[in-house]
Amino acid sequence: MKYIAIIGFGVVGGGIAAVLEENHAAITAAVGDTVELKYILDLRDFPDSPWGDRVVHTIDPIVNDPDVALVCETMGGSHPALEYTMQLLSAGKSVVTSNKEVVANFGDRMLACAAEHGVNYLFEASVGGGIPVIRSMLTSLAGDNICRIDGILNGTTNYILTRMRDEGSDYAEVLADAQKLGYAERDPSADVDGIDAQRKIIILTALASGKLIPAEKVYAETMRTITAEDMAGAKKCGGAVKLIGSARISDKEAALFVAPRIVPDACQLSHIDDVYNGIAVTTPLLGDVLYYGRGAGRFPTASAVAADVCAVLSGAAMKEKRPVFTVTSEGVIDFDEIWFDYYVRFADTVDEEVLASLADTVKKLDEKEFVVGKMGKKALEQLWDKLGVKPVSVIRILD
Amino acid sequence: MKYIAIIGFGVVGGGIAAVLEENHAAITAAVGDTVELKYILDLRDFPDSPWGDRVVHTIDPIVNDPDVALVCETMGGSHPALEYTMQLLSAGKSVVTSNKEVVANFGDRMLACAAEHGVNYLFEASVGGGIPVIRSMLTSLAGDNICRIDGILNGTTNYILTRMRDEGSDYAEVLADAQKLGYAERDPSADVDGIDAQRKIIILTALASGKLIPAEKVYAETMRTITAEDMAGAKKCGGAVKLIGSARISDKEAALFVAPRIVPDACQLSHIDDVYNGIAVTTPLLGDVLYYGRGAGRFPTASAVAADVCAVLSGAAMKEKRPVFTVTSEGVIDFDEIWFDYYVRFADTVDEEVLASLADTVKKLDEKEFVVGKMGKKALEQLWDKLGVKPVSVIRILD
Repeated sequence: MKYIAIIGFGVVGGGIAAVLEENHAAITAAVGDTVELKYILDLRDFPDSPWGDRVVHTIDPIVNDPDVALVCETMGGSHPALEYTMQLLSAGKSVVTSNKEVVANFGDRMLACAAEHGVNYLFEASVGGGIPVIRSMLTSLAGDNICRIDGILNGTTNYILTRMRDEGSDYAEVLADAQKLGYAERDPSADVDGIDAQRKIIILTALASGKLIPAEKVYAETMRTITAEDMAGAKKCGGAVKLIGSARISDKEAALFVAPRIVPDACQLSHIDDVYNGIAVTTPLLGDVLYYGRGAGRFPTASAVAADVCAVLSGAAMKEKRPVFTVTSEGVIDFDEIWFDYYVRFADTVDEEVLASLADTVKKLDEKEFVVGKMGKKALEQLWDKLGVKPVSVIRILD
Repeated sequence: MKYIAIIGFGVVGGGIAAVLEENHAAITAAVGDTVELKYILDLRDFPDSPWGDRVVHTIDPIVNDPDVALVCETMGGSHPALEYTMQLLSAGKSVVTSNKEVVANFGDRMLACAAEHGVNYLFEASVGGGIPVIRSMLTSLAGDNICRIDGILNGTTNYILTRMRDEGSDYAEVLADAQKLGYAERDPSADVDGIDAQRKIIILTALASGKLIPAEKVYAETMRTITAEDMAGAKKCGGAVKLIGSARISDKEAALFVAPRIVPDACQLSHIDDVYNGIAVTTPLLGDVLYYGRGAGRFPTASAVAADVCAVLSGAAMKEKRPVFTVTSEGVIDFDEIWFDYYVRFADTVDEEVLASLADTVKKLDEKEFVVGKMGKKALEQLWDKLGVKPVSVIRILD
């Protein structure tokens, strides 16, 4: 018998308790032993829950119980999740989490603490919900070098962008509806301003490179500014607008950022719609591999946590490649230095000859719409100066 | 230092030797030790190869060398790959393979032999080339119950079908060109008649259910009969024709088969083109998860073998869920009993009223083209009898 605890009994935490029961046979087979939920930490009581008798209100009984081998942290937020995790790891308990905020900001400390105390800190559920991308990167791609990642990492924004494209509606209208339907939070900033995707691309980059790059070094652009006209423009480019988290990784350098991008139809990511997530990982040997599935939700996320529970309690996680994260900004390429192709739309017609003479490549889509490239931010601004007019919309194209 | 051998030094075997050298640092980190290629078994000599001095012509030196911990079997074909694998496993050496023929036909014996001798038998490269689907099923999905698999499992046929769709060409024409380009074999039967995909869906079903179902119980339909008109018909249905390997799995039953299917545009698989493979796996918790990538080729396949090498030599594979396959036909649902929706095309107009009165649902696409469903083979044949005319084309639609 292996004993575990859940700290934070919300949507995901409750899902894990249900999954442990529902998938008892499969989990027992994977672990090689039965798994028993001994404690649930929450501020609330759950008198009507079948696990109501296991609820505690402080972390101490869990930390002090030598029977507890593993704790699922599904509290969310940095504090006190961070402090509890440190306490638990220091007490020799493995922790598995869905908490991307803690992993993206403090993953280095958590992993070091776990290594020091001979336990595991796993976080499959922190990126892509139920999509099994993290373990795959650490095992199946372990013998290779990941050089590129592009992902639709946030389901809420993908839902909004999909409806904008399909209905020709504007952002505000679809957001309001998404909020009504419970797909978007009342304050949608973390999703629509790219903060959630920023955390996830930070985690994925750290897995690929070992570098945990501070959020302030990772450019994140909102998708609030995308309009129905932009969607129509993307279609003229042969693509669709998606909020993409990207990383380009080499031995010495890393470029990572989140921005709305026009994704060409030929790219698998352009066909990933609604609340689904997709993560494309590139290595020299494999070319592109893409993982696709539900990026959030009670059961997909609980499934990822359950997989981590199995990996820890079977002993496999201790033999797999255990990541080491080092906080660093070294070798991080300034976003303004990265070259892109751009979709640009002007309010009026422009002097096409001047435009063509100033950009390396220009493709006319329409009287007022063009694709220009390849250039960085400075060259782009010089272009507007020389043209004497600024476009009303500029969207980077995924290559 | 861990010593390994490669048996069968062809495209994939040679790729593994190159990958071991090229990705030395990453592999050493993943294994926790250096990996050294000690023997290459092949009938030929390779005097110009950097590994030419390691070539042997019989299996004996490898079987008898206690230093060799693991052997990569990349010979292909059943014999002598099967006998060599048994010898090696019995001598206490783990075997990792890309040989789908051996896994699909004798995987039960190989896994039992490995378990008996306390070693591993892994076969990530046997399905989907470099796509990390097998380890993911055994680890990330270990705590869940896989109930459905649908995959584009063969790159050659997907390449042919993609070109037929895009160019409006007929099968024979595109095949001839694919053969010229080296994408299809001179005798393309194994690919186009679904034999290769049949082996792969057998392996995936065994991973999900433990049941290794004999090939003669697995319906496989050729895609040679698909025409340019069928492609146009698929488009009218809002989809594309793909060769799909499918499995539906429950505790007691399994239905598995390979057939050309019309895949609706809303399904991710419809957007997987050219030589790419894609495998959608469904579980109650996750919904659909899809893995996408290059299904064949020297380096993608070598990458999958290298991942298995890392899993064995790090010790992780011994802790992961080790599959047990049992050969059985019990609970295998007869293909003729499975209900589908069908695209049907007649040479002439038909009596629509009779058609509508006989099928549960009928959707008219055109004067001579309809979607009818849901029914099994017998009901479909009765339909033609009562209509008094047989269609010139019938293609099952993926739901």
